[in-house]
Amino acid sequence: MRVELLCTGDELVTGLITDTNSPYLEARLFDLGVKVERVVLVGDVRSDIVQALREASSRADVVVVSGGLGPTADDFTLECAAAVAGVPLEEDARVLGWLRERYAARGVPINPSALRMARIPQGAEPVRNPAGSAPLVMLTLGGCRLFFLPGVPREYRALLDGEVLPRIQQSLESRSVRVFRAFRLLRTVGIPESELDLAVAPLVASHPRVVFGFRTHAPENHLKLMAEAPSQAEADAALAAVEADSRRVLGARVFGSDTEEYAPVLLRMLARAGATLSVAESCTGGLISQQLTAVAGASATFLGGAVVYTEKMKSAWVGVPPEVLERHTAVSSQTAAAMAEGVRAACGTTYGLSVTGYAGPGGGTPDDPVGTVYCALAGPDMATRCERMSFSGDRERVRLFAASHTLEMLRQHLLTAPQS
Amino acid sequence: MRVELLCTGDELVTGLITDTNSPYLEARLFDLGVKVERVVLVGDVRSDIVQALREASSRADVVVVSGGLGPTADDFTLECAAAVAGVPLEEDARVLGWLRERYAARGVPINPSALRMARIPQGAEPVRNPAGSAPLVMLTLGGCRLFFLPGVPREYRALLDGEVLPRIQQSLESRSVRVFRAFRLLRTVGIPESELDLAVAPLVASHPRVVFGFRTHAPENHLKLMAEAPSQAEADAALAAVEADSRRVLGARVFGSDTEEYAPVLLRMLARAGATLSVAESCTGGLISQQLTAVAGASATFLGGAVVYTEKMKSAWVGVPPEVLERHTAVSSQTAAAMAEGVRAACGTTYGLSVTGYAGPGGGTPDDPVGTVYCALAGPDMATRCERMSFSGDRERVRLFAASHTLEMLRQHLLTAPQS
Repeated sequence: MRVELLCTGDELVTGLITDTNSPYLEARLFDLGVKVERVVLVGDVRSDIVQALREASSRADVVVVSGGLGPTADDFTLECAAAVAGVPLEEDARVLGWLRERYAARGVPINPSALRMARIPQGAEPVRNPAGSAPLVMLTLGGCRLFFLPGVPREYRALLDGEVLPRIQQSLESRSVRVFRAFRLLRTVGIPESELDLAVAPLVASHPRVVFGFRTHAPENHLKLMAEAPSQAEADAALAAVEADSRRVLGARVFGSDTEEYAPVLLRMLARAGATLSVAESCTGGLISQQLTAVAGASATFLGGAVVYTEKMKSAWVGVPPEVLERHTAVSSQTAAAMAEGVRAACGTTYGLSVTGYAGPGGGTPDDPVGTVYCALAGPDMATRCERMSFSGDRERVRLFAASHTLEMLRQHLLTAPQS
Repeated sequence: MRVELLCTGDELVTGLITDTNSPYLEARLFDLGVKVERVVLVGDVRSDIVQALREASSRADVVVVSGGLGPTADDFTLECAAAVAGVPLEEDARVLGWLRERYAARGVPINPSALRMARIPQGAEPVRNPAGSAPLVMLTLGGCRLFFLPGVPREYRALLDGEVLPRIQQSLESRSVRVFRAFRLLRTVGIPESELDLAVAPLVASHPRVVFGFRTHAPENHLKLMAEAPSQAEADAALAAVEADSRRVLGARVFGSDTEEYAPVLLRMLARAGATLSVAESCTGGLISQQLTAVAGASATFLGGAVVYTEKMKSAWVGVPPEVLERHTAVSSQTAAAMAEGVRAACGTTYGLSVTGYAGPGGGTPDDPVGTVYCALAGPDMATRCERMSFSGDRERVRLFAASHTLEMLRQHLLTAPQS
């Protein structure tokens, strides 16, 4: 089944709002085994809407159109649909009744401009909107079924989930030839995209039913696996096989799958180990603390973070001895180690992490140029570990990768540490 | 000038990620007086990309294409472009040189799959990517100019701002029938979009040459002013007049204009006052520190941040007396005040800011439900100020607005404080 989406509205093509309706529908269709083929966004321009409707309906089996169904003068999507179908708009008694009921329930007289919403293309079928005034309108053009929905996300989702998706699902089930799909996203960190590609390349030939894809979401890289087969069981089996092979090849670089995000995964690992964490940050300036505390319930595991931008605060809050700073400078493995140990002691946590470095654009030394970062992990029954990293890019990128690498020291440790 | 956008990638049509590149470009083009006519999203399917390229280039003067330029097997946008242009892909010596330099700088051997990025359509022109490996590629098809950009937002934006938009602007300026435009973005904080709209509505009639626009960039709201006139001098004059009126109406809620961002503005105000700052955060968990330290050179002004998630750390790091916590709880004006005073004393800074609250989804009390936030400002020659705020929305939104409101306490104070 070929599905296309058409979204109308000036606000969508002038950067005023981001289209979040389409990703919502795409994800739900994907769960049904349907990959949307094309999404088109056009402004409130009649000729553009007419042309886009004509093109989409000539290519697709199903077109979901959103926006331009309301009561105002710039709502003319159904007018355009009628033009494409070569039929007039007609006032629909059912819609008129729903509008009257809706206004009566609110105890206000019906607004004359609201009556525009009752005018739908001749031969179209309306469905009542549970969350608003403008109805869902269904229209068939040749071999294509078009669904017209309001663009307001709450109404769009209500009509989609309640009316549109069940109809698409029914139509899928009645088809004779079906392709079944199964999908997995494997999220990795610490491996560049080109290396990820090389690592899984040898698997491609032995998994002919699987489409491999890659996505960069700095500092992470994601491997997309999509299996297609004539039955769901075969698609699931193909996916399970390729996922197992991919995990074997990528090992501990995979931190999660599908919608799992990094910080919640790490916090869950800490919680499972009965462990707590504190962090001392210099060059990342609170980024690590902020990433962890963005997760609801982080306070059960993450107890404190010190952003220590001065030597004085490195000593006062996380007990870095002044002589370490003097002898080795604030950007050194010795200072990083003292920060990790110091924040762990100050907060009384199981683990302490630290990071210090030159995020740029200023700073740096000949031996430790901008991009040089030291991070350290202190914990029980272990020698404090320290790593020196060198990141390229601007301040934002250095900070992002420094934060990721620091957290990853802890995750890798938790993966291998004997569980108490 | 007719501009269309084409974005490629399975992740865009399967709901995995939301296309934020297009709104970014749309807004910037709108600032140049260009409304994007159409945005098309297609998956990683050669025939769909070819068809979409063919359609867009036959309709538009400029097509900005993103995605599918990387090193992996599912990156074939340029292959499709070559097919549409009827030319072969050729290895480009310039791109090859850039790739070699980039790998050499990182001290790693060039990855064979990376060489794919040097293969561009015959006759196309590459431009070096300052933020990544895949270059910008420019190609002319009939009367249409196509720009091919990587889809990674950081690289997309760098190439767009540095290379693509200046070229589009130049081409706009060389057109025979010209409308001259002058543009100003006034950035506000602390005023909802609907109130911003109401505040400037009375100005609209007296500035007929100006288009008023609004953009929400939580927690900020921006007023876009675009003056159009038959000469640049008239456009500039119309803009100056409407900007003065708007600033009069909006007053101190305007923190900056055009590309000025909040944190650099605040840090500059502090530097100008010869003042330093420290921050104690509870519910925002490092977000404020992170926002400030994202600015290059922040270390001259911002000396330390404490993320104090436990009562123990509120006492240990920022000296909140245990009896204050016991009597008033950690989420109270008394605790906020003690945190601001305590972090100021610990870091020896001119000002101390603090924030404590219930970001949700858990926590809260009948008197102080989720969304309640206390923030405080301590400084020289002033009584510590404390404010209680109540924000709606999810954890992310509460934290974002809490951080903004806390910083805004300081900015408003600096605006009115007598300068030493």
